[in-house]
Order: sequence, then C-alpha cells, then structure tokens
Amino acid sequence: MAKFITIGERIHCISPAIRKAMAERDPEPILKRAKEQIAAGATYLDVNIGPAENDGEELMKWAVQLIQSECDNVPLALDTSNKKAIEAGISVYNRSKGKPIVNSADAGDRIENIDLAAANDAIVIALCSADGVAADNDERMMHCQNMLERGLEHGMEPTDLWFDPLFLVVKGMQDKQMDVLECIKMFSDMGLNSTGGLSNNSNGMPKHIRPIMDSALVAMCMMQGLTSAIVNPCDLRLMETIKSCDIFKNNTLYADSYLEI
Amino acid sequence: MAKFITIGERIHCISPAIRKAMAERDPEPILKRAKEQIAAGATYLDVNIGPAENDGEELMKWAVQLIQSECDNVPLALDTSNKKAIEAGISVYNRSKGKPIVNSADAGDRIENIDLAAANDAIVIALCSADGVAADNDERMMHCQNMLERGLEHGMEPTDLWFDPLFLVVKGMQDKQMDVLECIKMFSDMGLNSTGGLSNNSNGMPKHIRPIMDSALVAMCMMQGLTSAIVNPCDLRLMETIKSCDIFKNNTLYADSYLEI
Repeated sequence: MAKFITIGERIHCISPAIRKAMAERDPEPILKRAKEQIAAGATYLDVNIGPAENDGEELMKWAVQLIQSECDNVPLALDTSNKKAIEAGISVYNRSKGKPIVNSADAGDRIENIDLAAANDAIVIALCSADGVAADNDERMMHCQNMLERGLEHGMEPTDLWFDPLFLVVKGMQDKQMDVLECIKMFSDMGLNSTGGLSNNSNGMPKHIRPIMDSALVAMCMMQGLTSAIVNPCDLRLMETIKSCDIFKNNTLYADSYLEI
Repeated sequence: MAKFITIGERIHCISPAIRKAMAERDPEPILKRAKEQIAAGATYLDVNIGPAENDGEELMKWAVQLIQSECDNVPLALDTSNKKAIEAGISVYNRSKGKPIVNSADAGDRIENIDLAAANDAIVIALCSADGVAADNDERMMHCQNMLERGLEHGMEPTDLWFDPLFLVVKGMQDKQMDVLECIKMFSDMGLNSTGGLSNNSNGMPKHIRPIMDSALVAMCMMQGLTSAIVNPCDLRLMETIKSCDIFKNNTLYADSYLEI
C-alpha cells in the first residue's frame, strides 16, 4: 500500500496575510507557509486563491511558478472556483513530483471540473454532493458513481478521482459521523482513492480540543482506507498519528526514528 | 452502542512497589494506584498477583476487599494463573458496579477458566491462542469458536466472553498488525465483545513514542469495533483518543467538556 498523502491547507486566501500577499504579489508570506508545511511533512500543498474572478489566471500562474520554483517542484492542488485560473495554473505546472490536483469537482454544478482534469491529465477531488450535504450513503455513492463514470468517459484513470465524502461537523451532526466513516470504507472497497477536509469535524470546538479530535478521526479514517486528507501539517499530533497509522498499515517500515522522517 | 471500557493495568506484581505491597499486605501503594487509575478514567481495574502459588487465595481476597472497600466497589479483573485464587477473589467480590472479570482463559491449557467464569457468573477474557501466537485469523477464529462454544455449553451469555486477539509487537511483527485489526472486526461482526493488552504493540520502542503508537492503534481498533482494552489509564493521550472515538461512534454525547468527564 502507498503512504497516506497529506495536502497542506495553509496557503489559503481566507488568511489575511496570504490574501494580502496574493494581492500584492509578495512572495515571502506564501513561501514561508509553503516551506513550513513541507518541513512538517506535507506531500502536496493546496493553493487557494478564492473565486479570483478578475485576475485569477495571472494570479494562479504566479503562485504555481513561485512555489514550485522555490520548493523543488512540490506538487500542488489548485483550489479555486475559477476554471480558467486552474487551466492557467496547470499550463505552467511542473509534474516532476506529481500530477496537479484540481480542487474541486462535485456531482452538481461543478461536474465539468472532472472534464477539465481529464483534458489536462490531472487528479481531481470529487465531492460527493450536488446541492448541499448528502442525506445518506446511498446518495453519496450515487454521486460517486456519476462522477466516476464521467471521469472514465473522458479517459481518466479511476484512481485519479479522489472522492471526498465531505466531513461533517460533530457539533450538530454527531450522529452522522459513522456514515462518513462507512462511506470511506465503500470507496476503499471499490479500490478508489479518497480525501477530504478532515478538520471540519472539529469546527466550533475549543482550540485545544481540535488536534485531539482530528487525530482520533484521521486514525479511524485510515483504518477505513482513506488515502489522503487536506490538513494542517503543522498540527504535530495529527502528523504523528498519520505516520503511526502508516506503520500499522505496513505502508512504511518502522524505525525508532519514524516520526522524524 | 456502549462506551468503550478501559481496564487499568497498573496494579501488577511486576512492579516492585506493588509486589512489595502485596507481600507485606501494605494497602497504601495499591490504593494509590487504584485511585490514580480511577481518577484517570479507568472503568475496571486489573489486579495481577502473579502465579501466587503459596498464598494466592488469601492474597486475592485481601486485594479485592481492600480495593473495593476503599474505591466505591470499583469492578475488578482478577489476574492470576492460580484458579483457586480467582475463585477466592470472586467469593468476596461486590458486583454492584459490574461482574468480576476472569483474566484469563485461552483455547489451550487454560480453557477451564471459561468453566470457572461460567460457574461464577463472571466475564472472562478469552485469548485466541492455544500454544503460542496464532499463525493467522483462521486460527484465531477457530480458537474463538472453540471458546465461545465452551462458554455457551456452560450457560454463559456470549457477551460475557471478551475475546482477545493478542496484540503483537510492531518491532518484529509489523506485517501482522492488520491481521489483528481485521480479527477485531470479525469479533464485532459476530456481535462479540473484545479486549486486549493493546500497548504490547509498542514494546521495545522509545518511551516517548509509545503513547503516540498506542493512541493511533486504539483509534483504529475502536473503528474496527474493539469494545475494551487493558491499558494504562494514566496515559493521557490514549484516554483522550478513546474519549474522542467514543464521540465519533456516538457512544457518548459531545460537549466541549467531554475530555474532563
């Protein structure tokens, strides 16, 4: 089995420092977060430029070239609702460390992002929803099937669709958590890859609790066969847990130094 | 679903302080560890008096009465290879907080401890081994079936046999870890309870790593349906993880104070 893949979530325009750096094309704040996340063990970095309706194409190109040129061609997830910006980012993307990830498609209005990924030999994060949270796993799997068929029709490898069950917030949807976990097992049993914004589970919880909840959940998810997650790699407890689960799953060989690798 | 049950492992004659206290019938060191473990959240306490071939009956009676009288009748697991000592302990055991646990039977020489548990309306920890570690899950499940049948023949409820897959040490048996996890799922799918000495996985690892490995494993095990474990409840990270998994499994209701409960 392959090692779990972490997609670092910290280059996100929701952060005031990053939004300002993107607006001013200031490399330093962005490279600082890129390097921190890589040092913390992130495999991929997510680059979220927001809707970026005006200058999205130019901004995404700038960000992709900046981060890859300064960070040894780290592979990236291109995260925006602006399709042209994703295409522009891919046009300058260096694939030597991994295909670009299109973040994201869904089974509703954004299903064409699967076609975009297919046309560009990219990976795509495929959210198992159309309009709002799926009611149950029947609905999640219906969306999964629709998106899988769409990808296959356009010539994608099934493993290039990374299915996202949509993690739900415990405060309000505690009784749905096992559905999400069972859905991950269904993906895994079909041989499919999966991912998601795992920390959504702990939204609204006291700050000191979030790493505890997130790390418990990631271990449960890895048991169910989750193959990647969009996370804060600077959350040490989370990363320790991911590395430990990779040991139990025999994805990496144990050494006393495994946490430092 | 019921909350995960922790069996505190720290009253064990392998500890020099406890061995001395047991030999001298000195209450304080034993009560100190009992109270620490209860405060840390242990449901049951294990009382391991070793083989205790000479004075086992009298020692177990003394320990059971001491701990229960001073700790609000905390439920206990009676842990010794001396059958008469277990029977003696049960004879003075107060069941108001839970049945006694016989620790342990196996599918080999110690299978008669199932009969002992049946005769005394006790729970029994049933190790899925006969002579040495089972080669694979076919063998584990054969032992499970044999012990389950033995219990049923003697009138036990199936849920009073707590099946132990035997946790294996990662250093040396890394490639067998998923077998143990799959075995737990098989127990769960059969509606059976399960337990085990989970921290055996991290034997021989650097001390700072053990809570990290143990807590990752307990979350994976709880996902698979493990219903209890023999643990050090003073391992904060482990207990936090257990409480968090109980939230995701909807075994306990989330509150911001859930870690303090």
